[in-house]
Amino acid sequence: MTEIGRIDVRDVPDPVPGAREAVVRIEAVGVCGSDTAYFTAGRIGDWVVEGPMILGHETAGEVIAVGPDVTRVRVGDRVAIEPGTPCRDCEDCRAGRYHLCRDLAFLATPPYDGALVQRLAIDERNLFPVPDTMSFEEAAMCEPLSVGIWACRRAELAPGDRVRVTGAGPVGILAAQVARALGAADVVLSDVSDFRLEVARRLGFATERVGDVPDGPGHEDADVLLECSGAPGALASGLWRLRNGGRAAMVGLPKHDVELPLSRLNVKEVRLSLVHRYAHTWPTAIALISSGRVDAASIVTHRFPLAETATALTLGSHTPDSLKAIILPAA
Amino acid sequence: MTEIGRIDVRDVPDPVPGAREAVVRIEAVGVCGSDTAYFTAGRIGDWVVEGPMILGHETAGEVIAVGPDVTRVRVGDRVAIEPGTPCRDCEDCRAGRYHLCRDLAFLATPPYDGALVQRLAIDERNLFPVPDTMSFEEAAMCEPLSVGIWACRRAELAPGDRVRVTGAGPVGILAAQVARALGAADVVLSDVSDFRLEVARRLGFATERVGDVPDGPGHEDADVLLECSGAPGALASGLWRLRNGGRAAMVGLPKHDVELPLSRLNVKEVRLSLVHRYAHTWPTAIALISSGRVDAASIVTHRFPLAETATALTLGSHTPDSLKAIILPAA
Amino acid sequence: MTEIGRIDVRDVPDPVPGAREAVVRIEAVGVCGSDTAYFTAGRIGDWVVEGPMILGHETAGEVIAVGPDVTRVRVGDRVAIEPGTPCRDCEDCRAGRYHLCRDLAFLATPPYDGALVQRLAIDERNLFPVPDTMSFEEAAMCEPLSVGIWACRRAELAPGDRVRVTGAGPVGILAAQVARALGAADVVLSDVSDFRLEVARRLGFATERVGDVPDGPGHEDADVLLECSGAPGALASGLWRLRNGGRAAMVGLPKHDVELPLSRLNVKEVRLSLVHRYAHTWPTAIALISSGRVDAASIVTHRFPLAETATALTLGSHTPDSLKAIILPAA
Amino acid sequence: MTEIGRIDVRDVPDPVPGAREAVVRIEAVGVCGSDTAYFTAGRIGDWVVEGPMILGHETAGEVIAVGPDVTRVRVGDRVAIEPGTPCRDCEDCRAGRYHLCRDLAFLATPPYDGALVQRLAIDERNLFPVPDTMSFEEAAMCEPLSVGIWACRRAELAPGDRVRVTGAGPVGILAAQVARALGAADVVLSDVSDFRLEVARRLGFATERVGDVPDGPGHEDADVLLECSGAPGALASGLWRLRNGGRAAMVGLPKHDVELPLSRLNVKEVRLSLVHRYAHTWPTAIALISSGRVDAASIVTHRFPLAETATALTLGSHTPDSLKAIILPAA
Repeated sequence: MTEIGRIDVRDVPDPVPGAREAVVRIEAVGVCGSDTAYFTAGRIGDWVVEGPMILGHETAGEVIAVGPDVTRVRVGDRVAIEPGTPCRDCEDCRAGRYHLCRDLAFLATPPYDGALVQRLAIDERNLFPVPDTMSFEEAAMCEPLSVGIWACRRAELAPGDRVRVTGAGPVGILAAQVARALGAADVVLSDVSDFRLEVARRLGFATERVGDVPDGPGHEDADVLLECSGAPGALASGLWRLRNGGRAAMVGLPKHDVELPLSRLNVKEVRLSLVHRYAHTWPTAIALISSGRVDAASIVTHRFPLAETATALTLGSHTPDSLKAIILPAA
Repeated sequence: MTEIGRIDVRDVPDPVPGAREAVVRIEAVGVCGSDTAYFTAGRIGDWVVEGPMILGHETAGEVIAVGPDVTRVRVGDRVAIEPGTPCRDCEDCRAGRYHLCRDLAFLATPPYDGALVQRLAIDERNLFPVPDTMSFEEAAMCEPLSVGIWACRRAELAPGDRVRVTGAGPVGILAAQVARALGAADVVLSDVSDFRLEVARRLGFATERVGDVPDGPGHEDADVLLECSGAPGALASGLWRLRNGGRAAMVGLPKHDVELPLSRLNVKEVRLSLVHRYAHTWPTAIALISSGRVDAASIVTHRFPLAETATALTLGSHTPDSLKAIILPAA
Repeated sequence: MTEIGRIDVRDVPDPVPGAREAVVRIEAVGVCGSDTAYFTAGRIGDWVVEGPMILGHETAGEVIAVGPDVTRVRVGDRVAIEPGTPCRDCEDCRAGRYHLCRDLAFLATPPYDGALVQRLAIDERNLFPVPDTMSFEEAAMCEPLSVGIWACRRAELAPGDRVRVTGAGPVGILAAQVARALGAADVVLSDVSDFRLEVARRLGFATERVGDVPDGPGHEDADVLLECSGAPGALASGLWRLRNGGRAAMVGLPKHDVELPLSRLNVKEVRLSLVHRYAHTWPTAIALISSGRVDAASIVTHRFPLAETATALTLGSHTPDSLKAIILPAA
Repeated sequence: MTEIGRIDVRDVPDPVPGAREAVVRIEAVGVCGSDTAYFTAGRIGDWVVEGPMILGHETAGEVIAVGPDVTRVRVGDRVAIEPGTPCRDCEDCRAGRYHLCRDLAFLATPPYDGALVQRLAIDERNLFPVPDTMSFEEAAMCEPLSVGIWACRRAELAPGDRVRVTGAGPVGILAAQVARALGAADVVLSDVSDFRLEVARRLGFATERVGDVPDGPGHEDADVLLECSGAPGALASGLWRLRNGGRAAMVGLPKHDVELPLSRLNVKEVRLSLVHRYAHTWPTAIALISSGRVDAASIVTHRFPLAETATALTLGSHTPDSLKAIILPAA
């Protein structure tokens, strides 16, 4: 991405791995809403693209070279890539919250470049070998799946909970699958899109069209809310649906400040947890996908070669019946 | 209270205890903001006073009679009174969340009468004997103190946390003392009232005048926020002051819907827990007061006989430099 | 059971339901090790059979009559039965730990009769309707499955944990399935019986023959241990296999006091939780079975009519290649 | 310590700080049981002293020099010293359990030297500035106090818990103070030494002479057990005293394997957590001491100059009425 709305594919020198780095031949890169936002608007909140930037952070590939001190991966390993590299030194890192590290270097978040390249040099500690039975596409989906895993953890999901997921986009559908794989009693997905609701139903979920159940008290039926749409009103509406002691995680980012009827919700003692990425999730993501408990490929609706990156980045605007685009840089 | 703004003191028949009830000679009744609201406005949200109602739910006294099946208290016991009686049967009760029981009978919450009487018949399981060293006034303060204890629990207060309490009213000052008694590293109280801040300082707390520190990022200094003011903007402002992984409990009830900048707060992964009363807190409250770890009498600024109940109920409006009024029905 | 080793099948009067009771036509009763112990030894620890007692507590059936105040079930409902009825009044009940209630009336635990009858009157709050797709046999297995669910909760199982289950009997195999259904990364079952290990493998679990891996440090590979064998040495051996911060739940009851090398284990900061039955598990058990995430029928190897109860109770002693016997009182 | 039972005081070159190290003039070093064990037996379990070793890890002093990259402390800062330096890189470090890091460099644990020196070079991240009102002796006591803080955390101490501390040695007395400072309802200390029980009583604790209450069921009176004696039978005896749902932390290290009646304890569903050092505790320790909530000086009974180190190390053997010896290297 050289400027807003423009992608150039360029030849760059082959990366040389640092002492604890490996070079990965990138095989699959998922397009995330944040990539699209940088591409079309040049910013997400306080993160502003200044100058050319490589996009892409949902990614996987094969190790083709390693630095001299690398011990955790070997050439030939097929790996899923965690995109954030923390400082390992601050109070947050020491407490195990490395994803909140103020110095986190995160792929495709300004000023850091992303993974839409053919060869990427990256710290070996960001690499997680996957079994041969898992495709690169699935391995790349460990990233959005991690958002779902972390959302369930932030919402303190407990086995037996009745879960409501608002927003049946890629993250919503993966989060719903995670909730089921962690022992939720039942999971309901809601959306405005018939296409997305149909995908949800094919995966075995109950669905509800947004608006079909009125807002307000009297319709409490969930212990946990995973708000994955960012739509105006979705959070407030979902909180009304929570039962006593309900817990909500806000995954979708609303564009504006949110107005919530907290005084009226307080008799239910609900709890709302904000979600920012994830931590410690890759091993779990790999286990859930490789054992078949989560169908990560279910959200991939389109695939593009590197040359069609711009089309992939704007997939949603021209193809509403879509979920996730994958770019194949090695194709 | 016979109608809005009017209190009648009446003779009523002596209560006869049910099989598992005790009759308590009421010695102290604290005036709560909810009593004042019922008295001046006739309602709190959906709870509407319809017909005469006895106010008062922060209370303590001496057992003077017991029903035939009573085993937990004896005549002569000095007791603090938990005002809510749950059904013990529903899903919430069985899960240990008896305070969220939909059939909770709570003193001075319509349609239930309160404790502003000389003799009260109540289930023995609502009674907690207190040591002789604890005054009835202190024992009555177990109720607002329970709000503080529960707020700390809802906020997942951990030893070593830096705690910020917004609102130095009776509940805020007690909540701050609880936070200190549960191992908070330091506790800061903020308010607009110099009188209240002075009370806080006398109790050893750091204080901050509302507005002295600007809103917005860059001033994060707390792990836990206990919002006890209900003032417009207090919650949003307090959330800005939270550090990464910060937790907030909303104790004060804002009058209107609350607007929160959740998208900008999410990089800190804060968590917000609503608070509705308390559960399982009386033994802890008694232990904290009787051991001197909490000075419950510190918030009592005025005392009234039963005949001056109306004055006590409107104390705040005519005496700004006040915190808590106690009514002494036996005086 | 009229005396040790002797079962009489008798005609008894039809039960009349109390106000909040339902009468259930019992369709399936699983035989538990405790039934066998009462039958062959007359006691389990401090629980001693004194006089005739009806055995059986893993059970399900159809509601055929209800008392006047029953609201939760209707005639015709197919129900799984939770065998314990708590007092709902003591400190443990109020805290949500109703299974530790000292007055818990539990089917087939002296002095309470069990469910090996054709018609059982029981409190409606012990009944949980199951979907038509679930067999009575599966519904009866909610009881041992609940042990597995509770063991995972006591062990603080978290998604992504590597889990080791020692003992591939009925409870071990169900506990392993629960661990997988709650998001465990991988689950290994160990036993001495080739038959049981083969059942485990058919369910997709990795297995290990007891003794194939030496005891002692250097073989730590699990985050969670579910000890389900009660065999001498199994707990100590399993604790050696835990990694740093590992958590163990002791489900199997060793016959004698247990010797543990705690001083040498403490550098790993392991935690050991004892397990006594379960609480709040039936809805989760029903959800896991009815959705196919747990195959409860997988442990049922033998079925008997009521007349062959004695044979069913001693199945293990004459048929080593067995797991769970089901008695069909209605057959 | 040049060999078992022999201490030499030697001149060593002044340490030069590394890039992120500070040099601390050591002002106080507490003698711990582990120092005494290395001195008298040459080993603790698998840690064996091979060659000369400097003892001492409970320590505090003043920063007198800093390396070029140091940002957290300045020359002149009075600091408490955390003795363990983790790798910050392994799975345990990343998870926030840095104290279980297999590469933890810990003062006075073979092969690492300790703090019984006049000048110590150490990573700045091990240094925690203390207020001027805190003595160096108190600052050094942050180390054993940290054991108490961590024991309470491992035991999942909750406000209102009734706590039993077995063993009124330095760690037991500090752990009891922590329990009180974290909101325990009441705390009972037991020991065999009248001297120690008298110290406990002076600090306001209830006490019990070991053996005064018989073992076995019927005497359950604690929610939490902090076993701080390591005495044979103390853990089993303490577990009998736990109530339903009780939690125990084993701080004292028994010399031999421990025999526990787990089958008989399981009806109470107790939980036992092993304790190995601590993590994230220094800020809390400093807050508790500096605010007066913990009296750390209360356990210091003897003080020695550096020349009398050998006497200090064997204090307990020649002076039974003692708790903690402090060595003052700068005196």
